[in-house]
Amino acid sequence: MQTNYQYDKQAISLDCVVFGFDGQSLKVLLVRCKHFSSEGSSIGNYKLPGSLIANNEDLDSAVARVMEKRIGMRNIYMRQMDVFSDPKRIQGEDLRLVNKHYNADLTRIITVTYISLVKLNNQMVSFALKNGAEWIDIDSVKRLALDHNNILIKALNHIARQLQQEPIAFELLPKKFTIRALRTLCEAIIGFELDSRNFRKKVLSSGYVIPTEEKEVDVSHKPALYYKFDKKLYEQEIKRRFKLSLRSW
Amino acid sequence: MQTNYQYDKQAISLDCVVFGFDGQSLKVLLVRCKHFSSEGSSIGNYKLPGSLIANNEDLDSAVARVMEKRIGMRNIYMRQMDVFSDPKRIQGEDLRLVNKHYNADLTRIITVTYISLVKLNNQMVSFALKNGAEWIDIDSVKRLALDHNNILIKALNHIARQLQQEPIAFELLPKKFTIRALRTLCEAIIGFELDSRNFRKKVLSSGYVIPTEEKEVDVSHKPALYYKFDKKLYEQEIKRRFKLSLRSW
Repeated sequence: MQTNYQYDKQAISLDCVVFGFDGQSLKVLLVRCKHFSSEGSSIGNYKLPGSLIANNEDLDSAVARVMEKRIGMRNIYMRQMDVFSDPKRIQGEDLRLVNKHYNADLTRIITVTYISLVKLNNQMVSFALKNGAEWIDIDSVKRLALDHNNILIKALNHIARQLQQEPIAFELLPKKFTIRALRTLCEAIIGFELDSRNFRKKVLSSGYVIPTEEKEVDVSHKPALYYKFDKKLYEQEIKRRFKLSLRSW
Repeated sequence: MQTNYQYDKQAISLDCVVFGFDGQSLKVLLVRCKHFSSEGSSIGNYKLPGSLIANNEDLDSAVARVMEKRIGMRNIYMRQMDVFSDPKRIQGEDLRLVNKHYNADLTRIITVTYISLVKLNNQMVSFALKNGAEWIDIDSVKRLALDHNNILIKALNHIARQLQQEPIAFELLPKKFTIRALRTLCEAIIGFELDSRNFRKKVLSSGYVIPTEEKEVDVSHKPALYYKFDKKLYEQEIKRRFKLSLRSW
């Protein structure tokens, strides 16, 4: 057999891109790492939270283990994204450091990536800080360890595409939010400024973003009304608009 | 560190679920395997086409290699499905046979699964037969090697869900098809019989399945008109019906 499998020198890992929104900016959970080098970073050496998969666990358990360590909760909803399998994704000095850290002699690591969206609060921010991690502004992310910038960019593109098809924005927002917060979030994900007047009009005519009785308090500008996302109305609206289901044929 | 990574005993494989439609029934490409046991199969021992990932290739190259071997083409469009990572997915006698085949001492194999949909023709059927594979009716699939029945079932559920959201049926059909062929295909994927009158009405009112000038020839029943799928009209229709895009906000 010509094909060289070299099955004894490869390992499988997982890496999680956890996005959080605090009402102001889109953030990503990063881990401070001492054992992987990365030059030229002005915010220190960071990587995505992740791990090699352990002997007796499946990927879901490994993801839960990593999330428990960095967020303090096992049951964070995760979607599987791509598998990064380029044999050269970790090489040279990076590979040497990984092998040193795991006391191993690996030639490659294939990583399964996950995306999660969470509503960020102060408690999570301080939990992360106490546990070797940090929520960092998407716009402030510099060079990450290994190929984690590639993974992050792919994840951002992924949610930007999803944003157009699914109500993922509301997974990142608190239950009550202003139209401005929703727009700020969409802009952060898409990477473009949106016209605020048209945005408001579109959102209010959507049929599933509905006003509450409450307004902002303690703000320097004119207090804005809080809105909420109505999942049932959303699903009705989707069904109404999108009657392409073959099951109903 | 308590966690046992045992990175030197695991391997990564890929398995492809390739669905084909010949106008009559939905089929799946299976490989005759001698080296993996599976009891009680009345159609012999079959598995999904797949392989361990080789040392110097990424997953896409490995998929292309497997497809070249069984279909004769490298560039089959594949979608990545789930990663099957249960540490116990291959055990006991199965694991022993896998290790014997690869001359290895693995304790687990994590597999990345792929789905493809192809228009099946006679050439592909005979190529498969000459190359250790076979296109087998979904309804005739018995027990497959390893956990490949689970993978196949998951893939079927996956395309049944997709069928409701995307025009995947037309990837399986020839350019010109009868409404009956489209219905037969949908029924095969969904696993239910559809009301033929309502089905026809729905399809014709879709706006993107349009009649050709041609009819069936050499058939015992009344020749039916051929239709075709108009991708441009489909995309326009989708845009019209589904104006939820946040990018347009």
